[in-house]
Amino acid sequence: MKRREADTMRIALDAMGGDLAPASTVEGALMAAKEWTDAEIVLVGDEAKLTPLLKERPPNVSIRHAPDVIEADDEPVRAVRRKKEASMVVCARMVREGEADAMISAGNTGALMACGLLVVGRIPGVDRPALGQMFPTLDGRGVLVLDLGANMDAEPRHLVHYAVMAGIYLSRVRGLANPRIGLLNVGTEEGKGNALSKAAYPLLREAPVRFVGNVEARDVLFGVCDALVTDGFAGNILLKAIEGTAGMLLKEIKREFTASLPRKLAAAVLAPGLKGLRAKLDYREYNGAPLFGLDGIVVKGHGSSDAKGICNAILQARKAVACDLAGTIAAEMKGLEMRE
Amino acid sequence: MKRREADTMRIALDAMGGDLAPASTVEGALMAAKEWTDAEIVLVGDEAKLTPLLKERPPNVSIRHAPDVIEADDEPVRAVRRKKEASMVVCARMVREGEADAMISAGNTGALMACGLLVVGRIPGVDRPALGQMFPTLDGRGVLVLDLGANMDAEPRHLVHYAVMAGIYLSRVRGLANPRIGLLNVGTEEGKGNALSKAAYPLLREAPVRFVGNVEARDVLFGVCDALVTDGFAGNILLKAIEGTAGMLLKEIKREFTASLPRKLAAAVLAPGLKGLRAKLDYREYNGAPLFGLDGIVVKGHGSSDAKGICNAILQARKAVACDLAGTIAAEMKGLEMRE
Repeated sequence: MKRREADTMRIALDAMGGDLAPASTVEGALMAAKEWTDAEIVLVGDEAKLTPLLKERPPNVSIRHAPDVIEADDEPVRAVRRKKEASMVVCARMVREGEADAMISAGNTGALMACGLLVVGRIPGVDRPALGQMFPTLDGRGVLVLDLGANMDAEPRHLVHYAVMAGIYLSRVRGLANPRIGLLNVGTEEGKGNALSKAAYPLLREAPVRFVGNVEARDVLFGVCDALVTDGFAGNILLKAIEGTAGMLLKEIKREFTASLPRKLAAAVLAPGLKGLRAKLDYREYNGAPLFGLDGIVVKGHGSSDAKGICNAILQARKAVACDLAGTIAAEMKGLEMRE
Repeated sequence: MKRREADTMRIALDAMGGDLAPASTVEGALMAAKEWTDAEIVLVGDEAKLTPLLKERPPNVSIRHAPDVIEADDEPVRAVRRKKEASMVVCARMVREGEADAMISAGNTGALMACGLLVVGRIPGVDRPALGQMFPTLDGRGVLVLDLGANMDAEPRHLVHYAVMAGIYLSRVRGLANPRIGLLNVGTEEGKGNALSKAAYPLLREAPVRFVGNVEARDVLFGVCDALVTDGFAGNILLKAIEGTAGMLLKEIKREFTASLPRKLAAAVLAPGLKGLRAKLDYREYNGAPLFGLDGIVVKGHGSSDAKGICNAILQARKAVACDLAGTIAAEMKGLEMRE
């Protein structure tokens, strides 16, 4: 990847990616551009659709026309290979060519991963890039879980790479001192688990991270670790089980609380409390995790990102650029290889 | 296994197993004995501890002395081999020797599995027995998930065995016509997943069950299938993620609702609604799933089973005996082998 030489940073935003795009992306870009005037935001997408939405024109927001779009149901690798003028692919090319310091997309996750691998490229020493996401926790710190599905059948050393990358990200981008790294498992004792987790445990103990041992799925939301490593299959099951259960419960509570007039009145008194709880579980606050292991900053936004979510993702990209996340990971991975 | 020849059925209950034992097991046995007078319940455990708790003595409840106990933190296989007079091991021996038609324990799950394998034995044709549990679903039907951790690294054909056994159990014991069997996966489309789920998919489609395809973790609680098959690692992650998220949310809601006097008053109005929601998610209603693939009825109760939970587990054991669950599974597995 070419590094961009410039005073300000430039962030390419896939304006067509996400369930609420392009309204969410345009609005999110405007929010971010006002807040961080040191960042130049390039909305990449269909100019005819973007221009009418862009009511204001701050000096640090521009449009780069890209006529095509990768859809949610496109087959990732084929879409990235064929749709060379899709907004997401153009963003990735801008990162590779040094025209942008980072890219963000809330579109098709598989395609974003393919963009990362095929267009941006891997960091030497990272065999399998990973998909991470911050989960909200009760103590408000949040926990980064990776991999969430980039690499379904991981090998033990992949989990070590995830741990090292997560540690760098949390300390450099999220500002967390000495982050605690856990291994998702079925019990807390060493020796528990499947072949993968059993083999990864001793490797993680020797790795240059603060390994806090096995973490059970039920403890994840209580903030017992700052990052949790696992294979893409188990990580995806964990993510969707937590999201599904929380979503179902909050929906049911709403239904119960609006079932009669007395209940509605009582619920009004409790609304601030429920709102507080919802806010604690708000994924938008944590939106925007990079694809870990790519030779450039590629940030994934949640598919249902609204303007606030996009704005947060831009903030994450900005921080990752500011601390040279990709370069730092590359240097650390080199050190890790030499130790092996 | 020897089959017992008798008019009434006899169920051996590990009176010392479970967080709340022996108070919960004794009380649960008394509840069940009153309700189902056709079942004889044998409380297996330390007579000196059980006798004072057994205030009533219905004719169909008795005590079988077993001086030893397998603890929650005992290493399963070693404990079963060494503690031959532990309550759980005595129960298993009673099943093997035809002295009991079924056994129930809410104790150490790994040890119960070891009891099943080492004492009771497998059904020919089932390579790996599985641990199943009913999860509550919003529609009130519940979903059986297996395996929850008996077999960490499953092979594709193991998942087919689970599907066949789950189908028999749901139709015979739970009375569900033509149960829908799903495969836990990271997406609903065929071709998604890790090596295991990709290989299991076509096998399940050909199996003698009503296979409804891949099921994502977020949809499990909505009742999209009646049984869900997966490997023990992913199943355990799913179970604990759902339990942990639901438990955390309900606890937080309680905290929010008791934070001030006005909130407490309002919460009183809403209490029935919340209670209804809690009841929907009450694992006790579904307590008691057999270990699948054993040559005898071995029923696992939730570790935190109270008397009601134990009583429900006894009901499940009674139904499993009444329909000859083990024999039916054995016959079906033979048919499956011939087809292969």
